[in-house]
Amino acid sequence: MSRFLADRGANIVHSDQHTTDPDGGDFFLRMVFDLPGLADRIAKLALDFSNIETAFGMDARWALESETRRIAIFVSGEDHCLLELLWHVRSGDLRAQVPLVIGNHAEMADVVRPFGIPFHHVPIRPGRKAEAEATQQALLEDAAVELIVLARYMQVLSPEFIGGWTNRVINIHHSFLPAFVGARPFFQAQARGVKLIGATAHYANQDLDAGPIIEQDVIRVDHRHDVPTLRRLSRAIERAVLTRAVGWHLEDRVFVTGNKTVVFS
Amino acid sequence: MSRFLADRGANIVHSDQHTTDPDGGDFFLRMVFDLPGLADRIAKLALDFSNIETAFGMDARWALESETRRIAIFVSGEDHCLLELLWHVRSGDLRAQVPLVIGNHAEMADVVRPFGIPFHHVPIRPGRKAEAEATQQALLEDAAVELIVLARYMQVLSPEFIGGWTNRVINIHHSFLPAFVGARPFFQAQARGVKLIGATAHYANQDLDAGPIIEQDVIRVDHRHDVPTLRRLSRAIERAVLTRAVGWHLEDRVFVTGNKTVVFS
Amino acid sequence: MSRFLADRGANIVHSDQHTTDPDGGDFFLRMVFDLPGLADRIAKLALDFSNIETAFGMDARWALESETRRIAIFVSGEDHCLLELLWHVRSGDLRAQVPLVIGNHAEMADVVRPFGIPFHHVPIRPGRKAEAEATQQALLEDAAVELIVLARYMQVLSPEFIGGWTNRVINIHHSFLPAFVGARPFFQAQARGVKLIGATAHYANQDLDAGPIIEQDVIRVDHRHDVPTLRRLSRAIERAVLTRAVGWHLEDRVFVTGNKTVVFS
Amino acid sequence: MSRFLADRGANIVHSDQHTTDPDGGDFFLRMVFDLPGLADRIAKLALDFSNIETAFGMDARWALESETRRIAIFVSGEDHCLLELLWHVRSGDLRAQVPLVIGNHAEMADVVRPFGIPFHHVPIRPGRKAEAEATQQALLEDAAVELIVLARYMQVLSPEFIGGWTNRVINIHHSFLPAFVGARPFFQAQARGVKLIGATAHYANQDLDAGPIIEQDVIRVDHRHDVPTLRRLSRAIERAVLTRAVGWHLEDRVFVTGNKTVVFS
Repeated sequence: MSRFLADRGANIVHSDQHTTDPDGGDFFLRMVFDLPGLADRIAKLALDFSNIETAFGMDARWALESETRRIAIFVSGEDHCLLELLWHVRSGDLRAQVPLVIGNHAEMADVVRPFGIPFHHVPIRPGRKAEAEATQQALLEDAAVELIVLARYMQVLSPEFIGGWTNRVINIHHSFLPAFVGARPFFQAQARGVKLIGATAHYANQDLDAGPIIEQDVIRVDHRHDVPTLRRLSRAIERAVLTRAVGWHLEDRVFVTGNKTVVFS
Repeated sequence: MSRFLADRGANIVHSDQHTTDPDGGDFFLRMVFDLPGLADRIAKLALDFSNIETAFGMDARWALESETRRIAIFVSGEDHCLLELLWHVRSGDLRAQVPLVIGNHAEMADVVRPFGIPFHHVPIRPGRKAEAEATQQALLEDAAVELIVLARYMQVLSPEFIGGWTNRVINIHHSFLPAFVGARPFFQAQARGVKLIGATAHYANQDLDAGPIIEQDVIRVDHRHDVPTLRRLSRAIERAVLTRAVGWHLEDRVFVTGNKTVVFS
Repeated sequence: MSRFLADRGANIVHSDQHTTDPDGGDFFLRMVFDLPGLADRIAKLALDFSNIETAFGMDARWALESETRRIAIFVSGEDHCLLELLWHVRSGDLRAQVPLVIGNHAEMADVVRPFGIPFHHVPIRPGRKAEAEATQQALLEDAAVELIVLARYMQVLSPEFIGGWTNRVINIHHSFLPAFVGARPFFQAQARGVKLIGATAHYANQDLDAGPIIEQDVIRVDHRHDVPTLRRLSRAIERAVLTRAVGWHLEDRVFVTGNKTVVFS
Repeated sequence: MSRFLADRGANIVHSDQHTTDPDGGDFFLRMVFDLPGLADRIAKLALDFSNIETAFGMDARWALESETRRIAIFVSGEDHCLLELLWHVRSGDLRAQVPLVIGNHAEMADVVRPFGIPFHHVPIRPGRKAEAEATQQALLEDAAVELIVLARYMQVLSPEFIGGWTNRVINIHHSFLPAFVGARPFFQAQARGVKLIGATAHYANQDLDAGPIIEQDVIRVDHRHDVPTLRRLSRAIERAVLTRAVGWHLEDRVFVTGNKTVVFS
């Protein structure tokens, strides 16, 4: 890879690599390089490289740093993660476009409106989730979305839906997984008397809260904190953890291997 | 309480209080006060207070700041928590005396010797744990110990033994409980791909790893860290977490309520 | 104080106290109590207490938990702290009203508009700061504001202005004070090669960046981070630190003593 | 470099690189590789590489992972950093040998003795520092030491002495530099009312506390903490920060560029 780039005049700025097992494990490499006129040459580079890629069983992605990917945000009744993402996109700290937000609570339209982004209200009616997911899927396809971010979306997506978006759905769970899997983690945390609470960003897969973890963080709590206070304190880390995970995904820093991630952060 | 102290000329330096539930919950109060000649007056104070104590169903403890309590340290094959405690006792950062260390590995005697503290080798032979525990109990009684610290002691104490030391055995578990309960938490953490690993100090009770949590902390890890590296990184937080928990216990900052703690840290 | 409250049937929920020096220092006390019908009785309580207050040279404030104070936010060209505050006020996490935002950059009006709060553009023209400050002062008085929050407001307020708002102006400085006082802290941090950058919330006084510190925090950086990246990373802690400081002020948890604060957090 | 290693059958396990400035800055590269029989081949590899090294103006170091370097520890009257280092060396967490400890307080001999390492008492008499430094230098040369660690050594080394050990003396300063340079940082911190205190490990150079920073960390403090408490709390981070810095140095993870470091941690 170094040789391939050097031969074409590229100047490697940063490089990370990781081997899961020196004997036959997976090998991951991320290189950042300078190459004048890259925008015009990138398609050719990828083509030239495809022989090497095939020969070595590699899976390469070439991207311009200026590329912005299209993400959809799913939300329910809490706005903190949604707003955090929208602010970061607007400020340019997250290099992305958000062509749509999908929510199952109509009132979230007011939160999204000032950002000039379409909000689609897709309610989830009992027994009619498949119908709702078909609507969501159509919206995502129309908008040519590459990544879904579940910003405290409190509906469980069906295995069929998730199956079409492998490693392209990032969820934020409001606990330090694998502690407090499932519903009501703040009640579980309060009952157990933990001294830290956490948040976990992970790729959603077909087992609830069991997908590859991208990022986690915690915050200190104590005996004075009731469940509403835990909920309030948790928001700060949910926002931060989800934003870091999405940012790393957008910058191609996250690789999935088995049920784990390699993150070149 | 304030009135009782004020009437006797005490100057309250610091005070913490907590009510688990304003309607009939438990009430906890810790007061630090200055009172000239307290060493000579403390027994009388406690006696005078006993009527109030009985009337209100309180459970009070009076102590001089200079009091040093007697603790026993139990250890197995890893010395990091043991040394951390011995250093802190020697430097005076932990206000305690250590009349004995009990270990099930003979070679730990070399680690303890420079501190001038007796080391008792009590091996745990298969099927003969009761006998070993009787030996331990006799040693503890002879040494008039008030608190046992399990400094990475890898034997499970029997419910009978623990039952005699309720809220007086502090254990350090090498995970962020309730994640990775039980054996081999580093293997569990590595398999799940978590991005933080933790340590938990708790009172040992009759359910393994389920006693009231006193303190927890975490450290960041990533995809490069194999199990031996997790073990090495973890030592730093195990040492710190256990030392904080023991220090708070010794300073009467920890109160148990149900299966949780109130810590006036 | 305990006696005064107990005699009136109040149930003390939480209490914190601190003495700067047991021999004649300042004494600070914050008590949270339950008392049925307090809203109707609070004026009477304060009046009854005034004799004790005078006798002991105390300075007491009585407040209902439901009280919301009126704050003004000052902003320049960066919106991250402003948005963080507005969002926390809207969500109820900060118990306050924001009757106005004052900025020296007209374009910030767009950021404020969705929150339904008046934005006043008060430009600072060279040599005409006194005039601008007179305008600001009039706006603050009209709005009956109790606290000013400088949310990355990049103008230095005059000693005359500050003098009228002692301990009622909270500023966020984008460094870990006292490191990197003054202008361009990110350049200073980058030049020195520090491994952490910080943010500091403090009461503004007449010496730039030298007022009593309320809260600080840091974030890890490394050799890869240029000044724009430091600026981006810093925003996260500036937002968090300022919000915690403002929240503690609003909940009467912050006391100034000399050039320092006592914070019952 | 990749090509050179690949041509010789090496398997690159991990690689880090950094360029201070893509236009003519310094370039740093650290590669970890597997190569069977490396112990016998390493001298030949270094020789073969020397032409490339010269041609590109590089400065390369080749080392076996099993290599242990020889370090001297300097200490004064506080033992916490010394003990931390000695324990990590004994446990194998720091890959080093400690052929000697040099101290200006005789009583530290008792602390060192259990580790079986020679302790040399070199007192610093007023006006006779040059003589003491000559003694120290002779001891270091006799012991073939490669790195000096100042483990809370409270004497200022002369520029002449330091000049002979450029980037080979690691000091721990008990503040978050550049805050609280110089003497009595805890008094300075207490006077300023900071909410975090820190520790800084840096290469010592001829300007006191101004050398390239390797690592820093902080710990939360509050209004209750007097200077002795700050000192006690600080020890925990001094120990951790110094140990990380020494470990990174020993594993060739630290590179000095100007007055800053690149750390591939």
